[in-house]
Amino acid sequence: MTGHAAGGAGDTVASVGEFGLIRAVTANRTQPSTTLLGPGDDAAVVAAPDGRVVVSTDVLVHGVHFRLDWSTPEQVGHKAVAVNLADIAAMGAVPTSVVVGIACPPDQKTAVITELMDGVAAEAGRARVGLVGGDMVRSEQLVISVTALGDLGGRPPVTRSGARPGDIVAVCGRLGWAAAGLAVLGRGFRSPVGVVNAQRFPEPPYAAGPAAALAGATSMIDVSDGLLADLGHLAEESGVGIDVHTDRLDVGRKLTDVGTALGADPLHWVLTGGEDHALAATFPSFTDLPEGWLRIGTVLLPDTGLTVDGKPYEHESGWEHWR
Amino acid sequence: MTGHAAGGAGDTVASVGEFGLIRAVTANRTQPSTTLLGPGDDAAVVAAPDGRVVVSTDVLVHGVHFRLDWSTPEQVGHKAVAVNLADIAAMGAVPTSVVVGIACPPDQKTAVITELMDGVAAEAGRARVGLVGGDMVRSEQLVISVTALGDLGGRPPVTRSGARPGDIVAVCGRLGWAAAGLAVLGRGFRSPVGVVNAQRFPEPPYAAGPAAALAGATSMIDVSDGLLADLGHLAEESGVGIDVHTDRLDVGRKLTDVGTALGADPLHWVLTGGEDHALAATFPSFTDLPEGWLRIGTVLLPDTGLTVDGKPYEHESGWEHWR
Repeated sequence: MTGHAAGGAGDTVASVGEFGLIRAVTANRTQPSTTLLGPGDDAAVVAAPDGRVVVSTDVLVHGVHFRLDWSTPEQVGHKAVAVNLADIAAMGAVPTSVVVGIACPPDQKTAVITELMDGVAAEAGRARVGLVGGDMVRSEQLVISVTALGDLGGRPPVTRSGARPGDIVAVCGRLGWAAAGLAVLGRGFRSPVGVVNAQRFPEPPYAAGPAAALAGATSMIDVSDGLLADLGHLAEESGVGIDVHTDRLDVGRKLTDVGTALGADPLHWVLTGGEDHALAATFPSFTDLPEGWLRIGTVLLPDTGLTVDGKPYEHESGWEHWR
Repeated sequence: MTGHAAGGAGDTVASVGEFGLIRAVTANRTQPSTTLLGPGDDAAVVAAPDGRVVVSTDVLVHGVHFRLDWSTPEQVGHKAVAVNLADIAAMGAVPTSVVVGIACPPDQKTAVITELMDGVAAEAGRARVGLVGGDMVRSEQLVISVTALGDLGGRPPVTRSGARPGDIVAVCGRLGWAAAGLAVLGRGFRSPVGVVNAQRFPEPPYAAGPAAALAGATSMIDVSDGLLADLGHLAEESGVGIDVHTDRLDVGRKLTDVGTALGADPLHWVLTGGEDHALAATFPSFTDLPEGWLRIGTVLLPDTGLTVDGKPYEHESGWEHWR
């Protein structure tokens, strides 16, 4: 972090003040052409060429969704944006912009917030979306709220409710890596770095969402709670059953190695691990799947429910925030 | 609050769970025609007929921006939406939708959250905007983040930077009422109810924003930090001076009475009190001001700075969240 007006490394957000900090984190950010009016006014103005705008919001809380002793502030900022943009992609839309609200203790080091916003800006840049506004306020616990906007480019949104019996179930992106990383971190380890970074730093395949929509996807969801949990949502909303074929799932050597080291079943991470932000979708059976999409199951009649290799899966399949 | 699936009065958010609570607060909400796809999917879809979308976000923290011993949960939900929609109106746009993120302790009573969301929905309904999505997560302190979207209807946005020397300065909406209410509450009183409710329950004049834009407003701002503080932002962004004429300000008998009772100067509340969410704007000098707008000052050359009756105002003029 260089060149910020916010001052020295020992500064706290209280000493720099709200307006100083907002100036520090919004200075010198480049904006894509969709940002018609950027940060600094009462509100921003973003292009919505489709005449509709897709919108999604997520709240991330320190100690619940991230830990600053496990992740750098930049990784946290990256993740806060990535989880939101994945929701936009899961509608088949192209993300255009994000706004970021931060609540943090007055004695929070300014450098933590500016680095966090560097992560936000870096991920926004990687996805070519504008960081168009935000808010900074005082609280006891660091909380980050991100709202993302996107454009459908004339296509209908791909909802959770369009899957039909006979459709292909497919995924794009990693599954189980973040859960393996969490298991590693929870045991006090910092490696293997591949799975640990997957937990700190999800890389949702944004472009795969609009590509799936173009290919005729009948339903789609962001895998945030775990593959089975999210396919469960999709099956419920569509009024169908879904069978997952485990021989189609890409467990891979990295997860197998970590599973062996920790005495855990890597397939369980793939089926139930959240926070990878892969995309899962259904397509008509004759579809040539777009690049990166892998067929992993079949849509069935509703009375079959959600099954794995034809049988109910007998472990906990997801999580809820307060339970 | 009746008819929610969330269950009995003693339920906590932990016992009802994230998905149960989301179902409870989104059930049976009517949506305006701008809501093309409402809550329940990865993201919502909102009409943006202008081809641009206006977006603003605010974060409200318990103990900082509201207190549940001073306000009902419904009033808090109302306020969280109102402060955001005021930002949209201050661009000259018509609000179309809001998304709401809530972080709260697991032992929070479900009824508090459902009542808070009733307040959110009531204010959204009053402003004819859709409550199109949200997030609910666990935290130590109740935090509400709201992001609002709006439509410019083909007009250019009214920014903070367009004021020109010779312009009229005008306001629409109450000033000083919320500050008077805060002073009353801070002394342990609960009345007069007019000013106390102004603190709990701001009523920004949403329609006055687009009306000002249509009338040719050269700059506009939401008065959230206090009249002088926000006119200071406007003067700085526009590179002009501003003189406020106190004989034009509507102090009114209610504020005078409260000032007398508390030994405070009501004019100081009008000049510096935040949280009323009136709108302040500048107009070319020949403008017939739209209904509800009151001329209160003049735009001057930049070297005069911000003055009150031609002199610098010698009290603290606003506040920052961490200072």
